[in-house]
Amino acid sequence: MRQSLLFGKTLRELQSDEVSVNAKLLLRGGFIDKLMSGSYTYLPLGLAVLQNIAALIRQEMNAIGGQEVLMPALHPKEAWEQTGRWKDPGREVMFQFSGRGDRQYGLGWTHEEIITPLAKKFVSSYKDLPLKLYQIQTKFRDEPRAKSGLLRGREFMMKDLYSFHGSETDLDEFYERAKGAYLKIFKRAGLEAILTEASGGAFSQYSHEFQVATPAGEDIVITCAGCDYAQNREIAKQKSGDACTRCKGEIQAQRAIEVGNIFKLKTRFTEAVRFTYRGEDGTSNPVLMGCYGIGLGRVMGAIVEVHHDERGILWPEAVAPFSAHLLRLQRDRRLGKTADALYASLQKSGFSVLYDDREESSIGEKLADADLIGIPLRLVISEKTLEKNQIEVKLRGEPAAALMPEKDLIKYLKTVLGRV
Amino acid sequence: MRQSLLFGKTLRELQSDEVSVNAKLLLRGGFIDKLMSGSYTYLPLGLAVLQNIAALIRQEMNAIGGQEVLMPALHPKEAWEQTGRWKDPGREVMFQFSGRGDRQYGLGWTHEEIITPLAKKFVSSYKDLPLKLYQIQTKFRDEPRAKSGLLRGREFMMKDLYSFHGSETDLDEFYERAKGAYLKIFKRAGLEAILTEASGGAFSQYSHEFQVATPAGEDIVITCAGCDYAQNREIAKQKSGDACTRCKGEIQAQRAIEVGNIFKLKTRFTEAVRFTYRGEDGTSNPVLMGCYGIGLGRVMGAIVEVHHDERGILWPEAVAPFSAHLLRLQRDRRLGKTADALYASLQKSGFSVLYDDREESSIGEKLADADLIGIPLRLVISEKTLEKNQIEVKLRGEPAAALMPEKDLIKYLKTVLGRV
Repeated sequence: MRQSLLFGKTLRELQSDEVSVNAKLLLRGGFIDKLMSGSYTYLPLGLAVLQNIAALIRQEMNAIGGQEVLMPALHPKEAWEQTGRWKDPGREVMFQFSGRGDRQYGLGWTHEEIITPLAKKFVSSYKDLPLKLYQIQTKFRDEPRAKSGLLRGREFMMKDLYSFHGSETDLDEFYERAKGAYLKIFKRAGLEAILTEASGGAFSQYSHEFQVATPAGEDIVITCAGCDYAQNREIAKQKSGDACTRCKGEIQAQRAIEVGNIFKLKTRFTEAVRFTYRGEDGTSNPVLMGCYGIGLGRVMGAIVEVHHDERGILWPEAVAPFSAHLLRLQRDRRLGKTADALYASLQKSGFSVLYDDREESSIGEKLADADLIGIPLRLVISEKTLEKNQIEVKLRGEPAAALMPEKDLIKYLKTVLGRV
Repeated sequence: MRQSLLFGKTLRELQSDEVSVNAKLLLRGGFIDKLMSGSYTYLPLGLAVLQNIAALIRQEMNAIGGQEVLMPALHPKEAWEQTGRWKDPGREVMFQFSGRGDRQYGLGWTHEEIITPLAKKFVSSYKDLPLKLYQIQTKFRDEPRAKSGLLRGREFMMKDLYSFHGSETDLDEFYERAKGAYLKIFKRAGLEAILTEASGGAFSQYSHEFQVATPAGEDIVITCAGCDYAQNREIAKQKSGDACTRCKGEIQAQRAIEVGNIFKLKTRFTEAVRFTYRGEDGTSNPVLMGCYGIGLGRVMGAIVEVHHDERGILWPEAVAPFSAHLLRLQRDRRLGKTADALYASLQKSGFSVLYDDREESSIGEKLADADLIGIPLRLVISEKTLEKNQIEVKLRGEPAAALMPEKDLIKYLKTVLGRV
C-alpha cells in the first residue's frame, strides 16, 4: 500500500477526551476512529491488525477441531426467556427493543441461547459428539463505562467457541486442549497471558481467565512470585504480601486485562432446552457444554498497552498491519525510481508492504510516523543507501541496521518473515 | 473436511414453512439454519460459500482502488438526525431504541451517515481526493416481509463502497469503473446480471441496479430482446409487448433479483455535514459522493435460485464451498485406506476437499448428498475404480467421467481449478 493513498493519517496531537493509552496511540496512528464512546471504526491499518488476529485465532481453533459458523446478532426474546436470561441479567447488559408487529429482540452479547438449540437440531446420538463450533462475530453490550478504548466496547468482535460433550471426562479433556490453544494464540500475538482461576458459577469450582498484566487493566490478579498460582481477586484465597500456601513464595497483586476466558457450562444451557443424546447403550443422557471466548479488539488494545514506547506502537510481527515498512526518505527522482521498483518487486514476491512514498513529508516526519505506526521490519532507501546501491534493513530487536543489495533482500525477508 | 465430522447434515425432507427455493435447498443441504423469519445462521458449508463471495468482492474492490474499513452497526441517533433520515424513512426500516442513560441508537441499514463525517475528518484538500472506502459488514432492517430466504433478511451482510470526488467528471469516471467491477464480480460468481436503470432520486437521472432474471425475483425488469435497454418497471418508459423505441426489438417484462446497486449521491450527504475541500486554486468546493452496494447473502441466494436442478444446488466453481468432493463409495477397508491416502495427498497439495468418509451411508445416500450439496468437481473411489487402480473424476458440464491414476490427478486438478 502506498502511504500517499492510505486512508487514515497519523496525528501529532490528539483532540480527544480519550484517557487510555491504546485508544490514544491507535487514534494517533490512524488505526481507528471514534464514532462514540465505546464504539470505533477500524481504518485500513487497524482492520489489517484485526484481520491478522482473526486469522491467527482461526488457525488455532481449526487445529483443535473447531468448525466455523456465523450466527445472527439479532436474537428473538423467546430464545433468552428459555434460559431465564432475558430478565436476569437482561437489560443490565443487553440492548433490548421491539420491532415491527411488536416483536421483541435483543442484541447478542453471547450466544449460548442460539447455539444450544442449534446444536440440538443436529445432535441425537453419541456418534454426533463431541462437537466444537465457533464464530468470529460482533457482540453488543450496553456498557455503563466504556472509557478504555478497545478494551471495553459497546460493540466488539468476539471469537466464541462452544463445545458439546457426552461425558464430563470428555469435556475436561477438551477444556485442557482449549486452554493450550488459547495460550498459543496469546503467545503468537505477543501477549504473556497469565492463566488465572476465576469464579466457576453454580456448576464448576473455577473458570479460567487469560490475564495480561498491565497498569491499564481493570481486573486485579493475585499471583505468586514463586509458582504458577494465579487467581482473580474476586475469588482469591490468598492476598498481597502473604507467603504462598503452595510454595512460600511472595504473593502479589497486579492489574491485568482479561483477554480471554474459558468456562465449563456443563448442563446449565443444555438442560434449559432439554438437549440430550442417546448413548451407546440406548439410554438418554444430558449433553455437557463448555464455552471459550476471546475479544479480538481487546487483544488488539492489550497488545498496544503492553507493546509501546514514547514514540509509538511496537507491533509483534504476527499481527503487524504489514510485513514491512518501506521508507523513501528524500524526494530525489532517482531515489523515487529505485524505491518504486523495490516496492513492485516486494509485492511481486508476495510481501505485504506499506510504502512511504509521500512527496511532501520531511525525513523527520517519515521516521516519526514509522515509529508511531510500529511495523517491526523497516526498509529505508535514502541518498546515502542509494550511493552504495544498497537498502537499509532494520528489524526491531536487532542491535543495528544492516545494509544489503536488493538481490539479498528478498532472501533475507523470506528467512526473517518465515519466523512469524 | 471429513464429512463424517461436518456440522450440518443434509435433510431428505424439510420440516419448515419456507417457500423460497434458495431457503429450501440451502436448509436441506446443511448450508444454513433458520433462527427466525429473515434471519439465518451460516453453517460451515454456507459460511464457506459466503467467505468465497466476500473474497471475490474484496479482490475486485481493491482492484479499483477501494480501501477496506469496518464501521460499527450501532449508530447514535445524532448522526441520522443530521441528514433527516432518523425520522424519514426512520422506523420504517430502522431498528431504533434507547439504552443506558436514555441514549438513542439505531442499527445501521446503510452507512452514509457514518462514513461521510469520517471521510470529512481526513479530507481537506484536492490532494486527498478521490477516496474510495468499502466494508463488508452486517446490516439490519426491520423488514415487513422476510419470506424469501437469503434474498431479504432482517440481518444481512453487505459490501458497501463509498466514493468521494472533487468533480462530477471524476465521480462519473469512477462510477463507470465501479460498474465494470460489479459486472466482473457477478460474472465470476456465475450470475448474468442485467445492468438496469432505476430511479436516481432527487440528484441524478438514474441509478443502476444489477438484476438477475429468475421467477423468484421480487423486482420486475423491462428489457428489450434486441438491444441492451433495461429499466426497472418502476421508472420504465416502455412496456411489455412494445416495439423498442431504440431498436424496434420486442420489449419484455421479467422477474429479477436485485443483487447490487450503484448510485450517484452527489452532494446529498456531504452537504448535510458541510463536507467541502480546498481546490488547487484555494477555493472551497463541495465533495461529491457515490455509493455502491452488494448483498452477499442475496448473491448466495440468487446463485441458488439460478443454479439448481431437481437434485440440488449447482455451485459455480468460484463460490463452491470446497474445490472438490471426494466420495468413498463402499465400506471396504482397502478402499478406505486408498481414499484416506488420496484425501491426505490432496490436502497436502493445497486443495480444499470435502471427503465423504461416512461409514454408515449407502452409495445412494452419498451420491444424493453430493448432488444436493453441489460441488462441481467430484472424485469417486469405488470397488470398480480400485480394481483398475484409478480414480473417477467428474467435472460438471463435461459429458462423461474420466478415469485416471492418482499421479495424473493432481496435475489435472491444478489445470482444472486454475480456471477458477
